[in-house]
Amino acid sequence: MNCSYCNRKAVYFQRHSGKHLCRKHFVENFLKRVKRSIRKYRMVRRNERIAVALSGGKDSVVLAQVLKTLYGERRDIELHAITVDEGIEGYRPPTVEISERLCRELDIEHHVVSFRDEIGLELDEIVKKGNRNACSYCGVFRKYLLNKKAKEIGATKLATGHNLDDETQTILLNFLQSDIERMARLVPSRVQKGLVMRIKPLREIYEREIVVYALLHNLPVSLEECPYSREPVRAAVRDFLYEFENKYPGRKFSIMRSFETLLPCLWEMYPQIDLNSCELCGEPTPRRICQACELKRELGLI
Amino acid sequence: MNCSYCNRKAVYFQRHSGKHLCRKHFVENFLKRVKRSIRKYRMVRRNERIAVALSGGKDSVVLAQVLKTLYGERRDIELHAITVDEGIEGYRPPTVEISERLCRELDIEHHVVSFRDEIGLELDEIVKKGNRNACSYCGVFRKYLLNKKAKEIGATKLATGHNLDDETQTILLNFLQSDIERMARLVPSRVQKGLVMRIKPLREIYEREIVVYALLHNLPVSLEECPYSREPVRAAVRDFLYEFENKYPGRKFSIMRSFETLLPCLWEMYPQIDLNSCELCGEPTPRRICQACELKRELGLI
Repeated sequence: MNCSYCNRKAVYFQRHSGKHLCRKHFVENFLKRVKRSIRKYRMVRRNERIAVALSGGKDSVVLAQVLKTLYGERRDIELHAITVDEGIEGYRPPTVEISERLCRELDIEHHVVSFRDEIGLELDEIVKKGNRNACSYCGVFRKYLLNKKAKEIGATKLATGHNLDDETQTILLNFLQSDIERMARLVPSRVQKGLVMRIKPLREIYEREIVVYALLHNLPVSLEECPYSREPVRAAVRDFLYEFENKYPGRKFSIMRSFETLLPCLWEMYPQIDLNSCELCGEPTPRRICQACELKRELGLI
Repeated sequence: MNCSYCNRKAVYFQRHSGKHLCRKHFVENFLKRVKRSIRKYRMVRRNERIAVALSGGKDSVVLAQVLKTLYGERRDIELHAITVDEGIEGYRPPTVEISERLCRELDIEHHVVSFRDEIGLELDEIVKKGNRNACSYCGVFRKYLLNKKAKEIGATKLATGHNLDDETQTILLNFLQSDIERMARLVPSRVQKGLVMRIKPLREIYEREIVVYALLHNLPVSLEECPYSREPVRAAVRDFLYEFENKYPGRKFSIMRSFETLLPCLWEMYPQIDLNSCELCGEPTPRRICQACELKRELGLI
C-alpha cells in the first residue's frame, strides 16, 4: 500500500483519518500534532528549562526525543531529564540504563533520584513494610521527587509522557466515578507556588503511534510492565475504549474534545487554591503536612 | 434470604446498596427515590395536568401507575396518558391495547394519536417510501405528536419513562461523541414557549427495578422490542455500562452525579434560546420550518 500523500511505501495506517502514511509523512504528521497540542495549551513559551520525566518506557523516551527534535536548536530552551529509581527489582534497573543511554545520545543532562536515597527505602521494601498497595506509595513519592528535583535544577516545566489513550482513560474514569474535581486538575489552570507546572505534549497522540514512532527511530525503549501495576477499574475502561475506538475510529479525540469543551467550566467550579508549604519538608501541599511526609510517617521513616 | 429491614422474605437484592428487600420495602424504597428525583428537579409543582407518554412498554406503564400512586389523591393534579400509534405491524397494536386497559384500570383519561391520521402515513409505509432509517422519522414525528397532543389537552408537563439505564447511556454517549450541547438539553433549564416541559420521574431508577416493580404489581406490560430498533453505538455503550455496573455496582449513580455536577455549567454554556413557531404548522422550532414538516415535505406529504 502506498502513502496517501506521496508514492512511497506506507508504514502506518491511521485509522481515525483513513490515511496510509509513509515514514516521512507519519513523522511529519506526528510532530505537527504535538506542536499543535503544545500551542493550544501554551505548554512551552520562551526561555524555558524543561525537565522530562523519563522512565525509560516508550512514552517518555519518545517524548524526550520529540522535544529534542522540536527545541534542540532553540537557544532559549534547555532540556533536562529526571529518572526516578523507585527500587523495583528486575524492572527498574534496565530502564534506568535505557534512560542514561538515551540522554547520552540526545545530549540531554540526566538526573537520577532514588527512593532509597530520598525516601529511605526502596519500593520493594516499602511494600513489605506498609499496608497500602504499591501504587499508593509509588504515585505519591514519584510525584514528590519529580517536583523536588525539577525545582532543584531550576526547571520551569515538567514534561510527562501521558498519551491520548492514558488521558482519555483518566477522563472517562473520572467521569464514571463522579470525580469531576480530579478531572479539572488534569490540566493546570495556572502556576502554583512551589509546584513546577506539568505539561503533557503527547496528550493527543495515540499510544500505537508512539510505539511506531519509537520503532521508526530505533529508540531504546522498555516495553516491560511494572510488576506492581494492577488497576482493575482502569483496565475495564481501557478495554472498553480499545474496542469502542476499534469500531468507531477517532472517538478518543471526541472524548478529548468533550473534555476541552468542559475545561473552562471545570476550572471555574474548582479553582486552584494557593498551596501551603509542608511543615515538615517545605514541599507544596493543600494541607499542613504533605502526602509524602504523611506516608513517610506512617512507614516510620520520619 | 430475609429483608434487610424486617423479617419478611426478600424479593429483590439491591446491588448498589447491598440490601435485600421484601416486597413492602422494595416498593417503599422505589417510590421514595422517585419522589426524591421529582423534588430535586422540581418536576411536579401545584396545579399540574401531567400527560404521561404511554407506549405500553414497562417503563411508561410503571410511570403511569407510580404517578397515579403518588398523585391520585391530589385534587390539583390531573393525570392523562397519550399513546402514539406509529403504525408498526405486529408490534404496536398489542401495546395500544395494553395502554387502554391500564388507563381504564387506573382511571386515567387516555388519548391515542396515530401517524396515519396526523402525519398521513404509517411508519411501515414511511420506511418503504423514504431514504432514512426508521428511527429518524419515528423520533421526530413521535415527539412532534406528543407535544402537539399534550398542548391540545392543556397539559403543563409531559412525563416520559426514561430510566437510569437510558439516561446514563445517553449521557455517556454524548460525552463519547463530543456532543456536550445535547447533554445540556437532557434536562430543560426553563419553560419554552410552545413546548410542554418534559419530565423524567424514573431517571434514577434502574431498569431491572422497573421490571420487578411491574411484576410485583401485576401490571400489563409489553416486553417486545421495536422491530426497527437498531442503534449499534448505543448498544456498545449499553453493554459496557452493563458489565461495568455489574462489577462495580452503583456506577450508574456516579455517572448521574457527574452529569448533575456539570449541569449548571452546561446550561450556562448552551443557554436555551427562544423558539420560533414553524411557518407551516405553528409548532415550536429553533429554525423556520420544524423538523417534522421538513420530513413531511421530503416524503411528499405536504
